[in-house]
Amino acid sequence: MILIVNGPNLNMLGKRPKEIYGNFSYQDLLKLIEDWSEKNKIKTEVFQSNFEGEIINRLQKMDFDGLIINAGAYTHYSYAIKDALEIIDVPKIELHISNIYKREEFRKKSVIAPVCDGQITGLGLDGYILALEYLKKIIGKR
Amino acid sequence: MILIVNGPNLNMLGKRPKEIYGNFSYQDLLKLIEDWSEKNKIKTEVFQSNFEGEIINRLQKMDFDGLIINAGAYTHYSYAIKDALEIIDVPKIELHISNIYKREEFRKKSVIAPVCDGQITGLGLDGYILALEYLKKIIGKR
Amino acid sequence: MILIVNGPNLNMLGKRPKEIYGNFSYQDLLKLIEDWSEKNKIKTEVFQSNFEGEIINRLQKMDFDGLIINAGAYTHYSYAIKDALEIIDVPKIELHISNIYKREEFRKKSVIAPVCDGQITGLGLDGYILALEYLKKIIGKR
Amino acid sequence: MILIVNGPNLNMLGKRPKEIYGNFSYQDLLKLIEDWSEKNKIKTEVFQSNFEGEIINRLQKMDFDGLIINAGAYTHYSYAIKDALEIIDVPKIELHISNIYKREEFRKKSVIAPVCDGQITGLGLDGYILALEYLKKIIGKR
Amino acid sequence: MILIVNGPNLNMLGKRPKEIYGNFSYQDLLKLIEDWSEKNKIKTEVFQSNFEGEIINRLQKMDFDGLIINAGAYTHYSYAIKDALEIIDVPKIELHISNIYKREEFRKKSVIAPVCDGQITGLGLDGYILALEYLKKIIGKR
Amino acid sequence: MILIVNGPNLNMLGKRPKEIYGNFSYQDLLKLIEDWSEKNKIKTEVFQSNFEGEIINRLQKMDFDGLIINAGAYTHYSYAIKDALEIIDVPKIELHISNIYKREEFRKKSVIAPVCDGQITGLGLDGYILALEYLKKIIGKR
Amino acid sequence: MILIVNGPNLNMLGKRPKEIYGNFSYQDLLKLIEDWSEKNKIKTEVFQSNFEGEIINRLQKMDFDGLIINAGAYTHYSYAIKDALEIIDVPKIELHISNIYKREEFRKKSVIAPVCDGQITGLGLDGYILALEYLKKIIGKR
Amino acid sequence: MILIVNGPNLNMLGKRPKEIYGNFSYQDLLKLIEDWSEKNKIKTEVFQSNFEGEIINRLQKMDFDGLIINAGAYTHYSYAIKDALEIIDVPKIELHISNIYKREEFRKKSVIAPVCDGQITGLGLDGYILALEYLKKIIGKR
Amino acid sequence: MILIVNGPNLNMLGKRPKEIYGNFSYQDLLKLIEDWSEKNKIKTEVFQSNFEGEIINRLQKMDFDGLIINAGAYTHYSYAIKDALEIIDVPKIELHISNIYKREEFRKKSVIAPVCDGQITGLGLDGYILALEYLKKIIGKR
Amino acid sequence: MILIVNGPNLNMLGKRPKEIYGNFSYQDLLKLIEDWSEKNKIKTEVFQSNFEGEIINRLQKMDFDGLIINAGAYTHYSYAIKDALEIIDVPKIELHISNIYKREEFRKKSVIAPVCDGQITGLGLDGYILALEYLKKIIGKR
Amino acid sequence: MILIVNGPNLNMLGKRPKEIYGNFSYQDLLKLIEDWSEKNKIKTEVFQSNFEGEIINRLQKMDFDGLIINAGAYTHYSYAIKDALEIIDVPKIELHISNIYKREEFRKKSVIAPVCDGQITGLGLDGYILALEYLKKIIGKR
Amino acid sequence: MILIVNGPNLNMLGKRPKEIYGNFSYQDLLKLIEDWSEKNKIKTEVFQSNFEGEIINRLQKMDFDGLIINAGAYTHYSYAIKDALEIIDVPKIELHISNIYKREEFRKKSVIAPVCDGQITGLGLDGYILALEYLKKIIGKR
Repeated sequence: MILIVNGPNLNMLGKRPKEIYGNFSYQDLLKLIEDWSEKNKIKTEVFQSNFEGEIINRLQKMDFDGLIINAGAYTHYSYAIKDALEIIDVPKIELHISNIYKREEFRKKSVIAPVCDGQITGLGLDGYILALEYLKKIIGKR
Repeated sequence: MILIVNGPNLNMLGKRPKEIYGNFSYQDLLKLIEDWSEKNKIKTEVFQSNFEGEIINRLQKMDFDGLIINAGAYTHYSYAIKDALEIIDVPKIELHISNIYKREEFRKKSVIAPVCDGQITGLGLDGYILALEYLKKIIGKR
Repeated sequence: MILIVNGPNLNMLGKRPKEIYGNFSYQDLLKLIEDWSEKNKIKTEVFQSNFEGEIINRLQKMDFDGLIINAGAYTHYSYAIKDALEIIDVPKIELHISNIYKREEFRKKSVIAPVCDGQITGLGLDGYILALEYLKKIIGKR
Repeated sequence: MILIVNGPNLNMLGKRPKEIYGNFSYQDLLKLIEDWSEKNKIKTEVFQSNFEGEIINRLQKMDFDGLIINAGAYTHYSYAIKDALEIIDVPKIELHISNIYKREEFRKKSVIAPVCDGQITGLGLDGYILALEYLKKIIGKR
Repeated sequence: MILIVNGPNLNMLGKRPKEIYGNFSYQDLLKLIEDWSEKNKIKTEVFQSNFEGEIINRLQKMDFDGLIINAGAYTHYSYAIKDALEIIDVPKIELHISNIYKREEFRKKSVIAPVCDGQITGLGLDGYILALEYLKKIIGKR
Repeated sequence: MILIVNGPNLNMLGKRPKEIYGNFSYQDLLKLIEDWSEKNKIKTEVFQSNFEGEIINRLQKMDFDGLIINAGAYTHYSYAIKDALEIIDVPKIELHISNIYKREEFRKKSVIAPVCDGQITGLGLDGYILALEYLKKIIGKR
Repeated sequence: MILIVNGPNLNMLGKRPKEIYGNFSYQDLLKLIEDWSEKNKIKTEVFQSNFEGEIINRLQKMDFDGLIINAGAYTHYSYAIKDALEIIDVPKIELHISNIYKREEFRKKSVIAPVCDGQITGLGLDGYILALEYLKKIIGKR
Repeated sequence: MILIVNGPNLNMLGKRPKEIYGNFSYQDLLKLIEDWSEKNKIKTEVFQSNFEGEIINRLQKMDFDGLIINAGAYTHYSYAIKDALEIIDVPKIELHISNIYKREEFRKKSVIAPVCDGQITGLGLDGYILALEYLKKIIGKR
Repeated sequence: MILIVNGPNLNMLGKRPKEIYGNFSYQDLLKLIEDWSEKNKIKTEVFQSNFEGEIINRLQKMDFDGLIINAGAYTHYSYAIKDALEIIDVPKIELHISNIYKREEFRKKSVIAPVCDGQITGLGLDGYILALEYLKKIIGKR
Repeated sequence: MILIVNGPNLNMLGKRPKEIYGNFSYQDLLKLIEDWSEKNKIKTEVFQSNFEGEIINRLQKMDFDGLIINAGAYTHYSYAIKDALEIIDVPKIELHISNIYKREEFRKKSVIAPVCDGQITGLGLDGYILALEYLKKIIGKR
Repeated sequence: MILIVNGPNLNMLGKRPKEIYGNFSYQDLLKLIEDWSEKNKIKTEVFQSNFEGEIINRLQKMDFDGLIINAGAYTHYSYAIKDALEIIDVPKIELHISNIYKREEFRKKSVIAPVCDGQITGLGLDGYILALEYLKKIIGKR
Repeated sequence: MILIVNGPNLNMLGKRPKEIYGNFSYQDLLKLIEDWSEKNKIKTEVFQSNFEGEIINRLQKMDFDGLIINAGAYTHYSYAIKDALEIIDVPKIELHISNIYKREEFRKKSVIAPVCDGQITGLGLDGYILALEYLKKIIGKR
């Protein structure tokens, strides 16, 4: 199973500035992943929370074979999520919908990047699909 | 309706150092706002939480016409609350009871200031009343 | 008597960018304060100067019971005005018409904030009225 | 009663890198404290949470005579926990199992250190026992 | 046509540390892209150079519909390549084989990131295929 | 009319170190500008002051069609002059007689540069003539 | 002979953002200089390259009496060009078409400024003519 | 003649915090210097101003044989006063009544120190007498 | 044998500020350790010196089974003591009587922390006893 | 008795660069102080050492009524000497022969300045006499 | 074979400031190495280029048994040359003719130092001979 | 005579980490130098001390014709040794056995480098022989 974790305010996707996040609602994202899941016959679970603690609790279950994490603003300061990720021993992709390197200074630093395998940034909702494709391929090999 | 959000440890008001926070309990603050509300016939709701996630959840309801936020220590690092505030499209006032510019270095930086309309700092509990008066006037105009 | 000190370039209010300073001239501000003064039967004096030295000279007279200071650009580097303020023993409010935390980096640091009682920022001309209301209440108590 | 607060990811102790955290599970830690408690006839309570807000809530109860706090990653950025600790007026020991000064740069700064009485770092699970011994002695004196 | 630009030392792929770059030669990369190209019937060109100037010259031809750029070490200081990229008006993906956020400090800063659409990092040679898939989809839409 | 503003200590030109400022007195500069003015039949006014406030007062008259400003040491810290310049809507040239980039660290930062159209530095008194020629051409076009 | 060196991407002048670089093509610049050259009967050579090494090679010929250098992005980091300029013993003018002090942070630092005689910035293509006029005058004197 | 320049707020000496400035009024200082002057038969002039520009104007007269300057808060940012001092070719002593190295961070940096001969700090009003004694001796020798 | 090294000024313990160091003389500390030594039948040696070189010389003897080092002010800059400690292969505890994290900025950085096993800070003279208890246990195990 | 402590390399005075230290040998300094001592009938002792530890040992004797300390290069990093000075409760003057604010960057920071009463800098050997005069006056008063 | 790589502007040796680079031409250096080569019967090749890319190309040939690299100004920013050096598995000596630690700030940082075996700096042309002697010895051993 | 000064902990050479310092004891180094001395008929003296003061005392004797100094950890902070070296007027070589640029951040800065003629780093014990060869040649010339 592939777990997709979405952090704070990602549930508001359709209400965030369109020039940065594109013209999609959070429901569009859920649908996109569901469709991919069915087509590829790979189980996925999407988990969203505005609580740092809930995200850590979810990660600690370690019941997944691959992970996509878009930690939202927690990306930039949650060393607690970083520590939770560090223990996890499955492929982990950090994801951002917008190009965080074009925005405010504080968004350029990800404290979780060094404990993930890689990062996909700025490719909109397509980024999730690319990450799923990658995980599908990698998990198959293991 | 005007929402007043109070962040971590503000519920302990009466127990924090008096030379910084003055000689008031949290109940005094609640009473003050209630009185103003009745007198001005404007609904108010005071929400307090020590959880970053709960504050974000409350803000995302977007069921208010004006906002006063005293984010306590989260003021200085919660980019997640910042992102939640950014989406909100009603007048938003950042409030601090004490003069944060007289205290430790870390208190001098507010990460939420750029997404609020203005800031009232160091005027004690009176700051809440000034903010309410301002919002009353502004909301009336819209 | 309440003294309102306005620093450099505030006399040009109507000519500064409207999206930052709003749609008001300096005469509008003078009128606003005058009206408040009459209505509240409290004497006010508005002093404007582009000279750091003149502002210090005015402050040193110490003939007022409350102070509102919008030091304009001097806010960010005039330690001389800071030293003048430090000696003054009446309630002192720092005021900014625009939200200085939304603007250039250098405007985020106020060298006079630690010697004022509090700060009102980003509330436009209304900020002056809120400050006057606060001082009226505080001075009455003393 | 002595309260021991363990922050995020400490419940995963047995799964974190052994060269840093040693060869112990979280259950070993609980047992160790329980044994000490029985032997010394001093009540202890161990509280663990991955939520910043829950830790603050627990601290605000103020129903203990001494405190040991291992705030995990929150040590390095939770000014909210710092503010909660500041109000508490019993002996407070900051504890870290590993030597945080041998690790990543961000772990060298503790925002809660200035509001604790002292710190024990890098002595493994033994650190908890030393802290308990210290508190036992200090509390006895008060 | 999709242009893939590989910067300095990428031609030495098979000789760089395997724990960072994986167990592949540069020829493997060329083959991978060629295969994708044939299968997807989309023309691709791979351009490699150790010269900043040659990379800029190649980019200035502007004869491509999509771009993947792995600028190697130039990523971290070549503002000249940045300026060349800025003018280009087709989808641009920045790519890194290794997770640059796990390595030396200087590799964490990309001067070209703000002028690319997005970034794929740390996914090995698979990153190139993901980027090609993304461009194929995006270019098709335009 | 073209206004030339010279800031603090420029009136002492002949007494400042010759290896930096060249072998000219302030009178030589005045003569040079006067001659150009007569020859080109364009009115010029040279204003010198050691007072930040006087320079701001002069700028606020806004009775000129082009501006050359050599703000002397105020270049490096006078945000008040910066604010005064920002409102002015005619071509503005920042000028320095010496090459400020060859001197002390503090001289390398100009706070007024972002609100001028351009800068001429290090070309001695000739810089004034070049600036006048430029303004003559630009103003003619408008 | 006066040498004009243009660095990386200046050959793309007409394609760079017009609000920064103005409404001119590189051919317009060449024509402008040619015309000046003919009118003033002073030989000029315009050299453009995207290669740091080629620029250094050209400078090392030392077959010119005056130099105008617009090093493009190399301005901000090429200490190699700096070293090449340092040896050259004829008048040297650094030139920028746009006002580099209004743009990104990295453009505010010129590593070659301390080894040039002066700088002309932000005056568009006119800057080249002003620099030529200055060199004409200075070279005549030597 | 020895000139003593006192900068902003020194005229308020008796009103500034006694634990820092001692138990003296500005009149005490004037008297002290006058007495020394009479006793030593050396002319002195004490000049005080809150204006940066007036201090520069006074210094530019250059009608003195020795200088004591207590620039008050201007010490820490007035590069304009620095430039004025640099030209002056008589012995120059920088003076501070309080030990500026025991106070706020910004007071630890003197921008005028590098252009004075020496500095006397923290010795109260006695510092002025020591400086006068020094100048008397040095001037005698010249 | 357990060696206790006390660095500069610790011999003056009784004369240092009591609110920081507590109400004990250096003799009290010596007595405390002696008593522990006798009771536990473990040899201890206390070595104090104000000389960096003597401390290094003492450490280089390597005739001890455990080490407690309170390096006093050398903690913050003696890389020479750090190098001496690095070679030593017995359990090493860094100790501070006061909570160094509550004091001046420079005291927050220990250059010897990364080469010790752990640190006990702010627990007064009790810290020495806790460290001895720890070493007794650890040494017994080896 | 007044103790004068001279730190490392001051014994080489005559051999250090004359443009910085003046045309004097260390013997000249000793003679100067001896003469003052005899003339003023106040005992003085001059202590010089290149050892940080010896300076601390000497200070710890606390057998003097006033102190002049020229700590040489130790001024800039010896927190151990700082701690020794902090305990001493007689008037303490920090002295430098040269103007340390005109020299290398590292010489501008004195770690001992905050624990001395005042500082005399840049006045050559005369500085010692001024400091002695000051101490004579102050000690007399106590 | 031992390869000696000389970077930008080293071909101008005789024309660079003599007080820094000594009284030698580049031909003198070539002759010196040739003579050593003949005398020691060890093949050497001297390669000079002003192009970063050419230096990388030359290094990638990997046809040498030892390397001396004087990367000139590229020393300070060419991470591309650094990456090229990192792959090379023969003894590598970084060389500078002048003492780079006595010069401008930017010259104090070598980005290639961490991937070379050692560094010889400031010993003039003799440095090359010392490096050759070292390599001769080391290569012989392998 | 050539003096070789070895600073703190170099006497422990054989006990320091072999992967950094190589497989040699301090006796091996002494032997190496002695052999060179005999073979070359040049007197050498090796002086080792862990005391900053002793190193300075030894240097101040100035009884040598050339100097090799490996100041160990004092390299990075002993401005006192720097001042002692500055006065010495014979050829001075700074030496490090290991490549200090590959190690901890603090080891990358040498405070004595600017007052030595050159530096040999990372060449193991061979570095001493190269330095001796260099001094032999240079001293011969003088």
